[in-house]
Amino acid sequence: MKNTIHEEAKLSQTAVQKIPGGLCAIEDVWVSGVHAGFKKDAKDLALIFFPKGATMTAVFTQNAVQSHHIIYDKKLLNENSQFKAIMINSGNANTFNGPRGDYDVHLMASVLADQLDIAPEEVLICSTGVIGVPMNLDAFDVKVNKLTHQMTDGDSIPAAEAIMTTDTTIKQVAYEFEIDGQTVHLAAIAKGAGMIHPNLGTLLSYIVTDFDLGQATFQQMLQSAVANTFNQISVDGDTSPNDTIILASTNKVQITPSKANIAVFYQQLEAICLEMAQLIVKDGEGASKFVEVQVKGAGSKEDAVKIAKQVATSSLVKTALFGQDANWGRAISAVGQAQPSVFQTDKVSIAFQSDKGSIVTCEKGAGRVFDENQALAILSEKEIVIAIDMGVGEFDASVWTADMTEDYIKINADYRS
Amino acid sequence: MKNTIHEEAKLSQTAVQKIPGGLCAIEDVWVSGVHAGFKKDAKDLALIFFPKGATMTAVFTQNAVQSHHIIYDKKLLNENSQFKAIMINSGNANTFNGPRGDYDVHLMASVLADQLDIAPEEVLICSTGVIGVPMNLDAFDVKVNKLTHQMTDGDSIPAAEAIMTTDTTIKQVAYEFEIDGQTVHLAAIAKGAGMIHPNLGTLLSYIVTDFDLGQATFQQMLQSAVANTFNQISVDGDTSPNDTIILASTNKVQITPSKANIAVFYQQLEAICLEMAQLIVKDGEGASKFVEVQVKGAGSKEDAVKIAKQVATSSLVKTALFGQDANWGRAISAVGQAQPSVFQTDKVSIAFQSDKGSIVTCEKGAGRVFDENQALAILSEKEIVIAIDMGVGEFDASVWTADMTEDYIKINADYRS
Repeated sequence: MKNTIHEEAKLSQTAVQKIPGGLCAIEDVWVSGVHAGFKKDAKDLALIFFPKGATMTAVFTQNAVQSHHIIYDKKLLNENSQFKAIMINSGNANTFNGPRGDYDVHLMASVLADQLDIAPEEVLICSTGVIGVPMNLDAFDVKVNKLTHQMTDGDSIPAAEAIMTTDTTIKQVAYEFEIDGQTVHLAAIAKGAGMIHPNLGTLLSYIVTDFDLGQATFQQMLQSAVANTFNQISVDGDTSPNDTIILASTNKVQITPSKANIAVFYQQLEAICLEMAQLIVKDGEGASKFVEVQVKGAGSKEDAVKIAKQVATSSLVKTALFGQDANWGRAISAVGQAQPSVFQTDKVSIAFQSDKGSIVTCEKGAGRVFDENQALAILSEKEIVIAIDMGVGEFDASVWTADMTEDYIKINADYRS
Repeated sequence: MKNTIHEEAKLSQTAVQKIPGGLCAIEDVWVSGVHAGFKKDAKDLALIFFPKGATMTAVFTQNAVQSHHIIYDKKLLNENSQFKAIMINSGNANTFNGPRGDYDVHLMASVLADQLDIAPEEVLICSTGVIGVPMNLDAFDVKVNKLTHQMTDGDSIPAAEAIMTTDTTIKQVAYEFEIDGQTVHLAAIAKGAGMIHPNLGTLLSYIVTDFDLGQATFQQMLQSAVANTFNQISVDGDTSPNDTIILASTNKVQITPSKANIAVFYQQLEAICLEMAQLIVKDGEGASKFVEVQVKGAGSKEDAVKIAKQVATSSLVKTALFGQDANWGRAISAVGQAQPSVFQTDKVSIAFQSDKGSIVTCEKGAGRVFDENQALAILSEKEIVIAIDMGVGEFDASVWTADMTEDYIKINADYRS
């Protein structure tokens, strides 16, 4: 399916328009965000409410440690496809809290369901924040009461704000585009993968549409889109036990699905996921540069991804980028460490690129004398590409990452105090 | 064989004596170290000479990028077991230098062989330093002449010094012990795995003995010992294309090999490898702490190693240790990221330990309230243990690493300039 989608998508061109409102650009989506005491004073409890219901599907972290909310949500999503609310708290990850952690997720869902007059099974819960500290749910009904009373269908900013941890910017976008003459909407909010103050930079994203495609198709699409976008970013190589991406559809736009219109939608879904993923990297704590590791000509897709990820997570590569040092030796060593299945030293070339130009530092297995001043000019830019040509095949992959800075150490050496 | 060796070793107790002289504690081992212009002014060319020959075996980097010297040495070691000299330069890795890189290794071996009046095939070559810069071998015969004329059999310090890059201390030890009433010697020199100024902290170690066991047995032993020691250290998760460990025996001590005496020797070999490996971590650039990640009760040996390595290479865990922060949430997340084949949340416990005591921060899947002052006291020490009990099996592993400091970033952001 993946390939078909991509091929069809290339054929189709559709006019896409950016629109305001975030998730609320879609009809029958209400949101809210309040301070509930998980954080010191910022908003820390968000609600996305679908009064007419929504078809939902999700992708969760691959970390073997799974937050209590993930165990809870997975069970519900296996049993049902229709839900009415997602409630998210920041400031406490509700992870590794033993039986109490499970109890607290149930409690949160019940309190919300009660106040919205829906069934607890219609509520999904997410948490992000510190690991291993029990949730403070004192007077939680009062807090949820405030949450439900401040709902708006005007703009999802309050929710986008309440899910933030050390993010410095709100991350939300909304688009509309035509499918078979009808207007389809697609919107998303997200919070950061960090660099990584809160605790491992949980990645949360909520994507909403009104196109009716059914849970099974959405699930396939979301998995594919996440694999090509959110899973291709790396801030510091650590994953969180809480990472959650939920796709919800109000199903208002009813069009007979065809290969072509599914492809158009998928293209937009992947685009919005990529936009969110890149916003997350750009807002990485302590990051001073946005870096694309671009691998071309690998012997297999697996090789291309493996190589790009190894280079993007190498502390040595990332510190060199912070130092604006065209240290391609560290990049080539990371390539080797990835142990690609097809590798020929005398085929590999590496270039550094930015808006200031491109410089080839090694070509077909040997270093090239290059102008260090030109290299410095290129690497002084905020956005850098490390272009690696393996020269042995047809397969490409890109991974987006940030540099590793002294601020990264400062922030992360001391986050709990 | 591995298990047998270990079991036998446990049964045997032998008096081991530390002795001076490094590699030169063994008869018929001559060394030299001089400045040859690869580095600005420090010693950068080392020689270990065995006038009566030695049986040699080696373990090389698993990085797919392999230094030109490794390709050269591998070929010779496949063809022969007897060699007379190892020449090592620091300051230039002779890696990724195309056909010229191969030519230069041959040239280096020829020049040395000529001056020592031995065959070029009796010489192994090693290089460490910057990647992708062709070697400067101008007037190399003059430099090698100096090298061969300064040979000594008194102490291997000049060689141990000449292989250093940013190591701050010379790393050499020598021991003697009895096997079946005869005195056997075992000595080693090493240079650092970095943190990692030169370029990826190449690990080099040369281990010499006089016990005659033959290349095949030595090869098996060295592989096993390296797997349990050098391969269980991690400074920043990057490996170098140049890592080389050579074991050489002058074969002077002839004892009929038995399970028991092989086991005694293996025990000492593993011990000297562990000592060298730990010295390397302790001397890691920018490191302020020496950390043992100790995994117990894992479901398999593979799981235990995987978990320990994931925790030991997590930037978040390493920055928290620098910050003396008992942030066990980062450790448990790294455990989960390792995706062990057997994992039960409610069995996992984590403690931090040092000479100041031990504190359990999470027990059987849930965080424990702990005294932050006591935790800080424990983590203020130079040597820290993170003890992770998986609670699901019988398998253990330890990995040794260093914390990640602001100095690490400073050093590595700017090493080439």
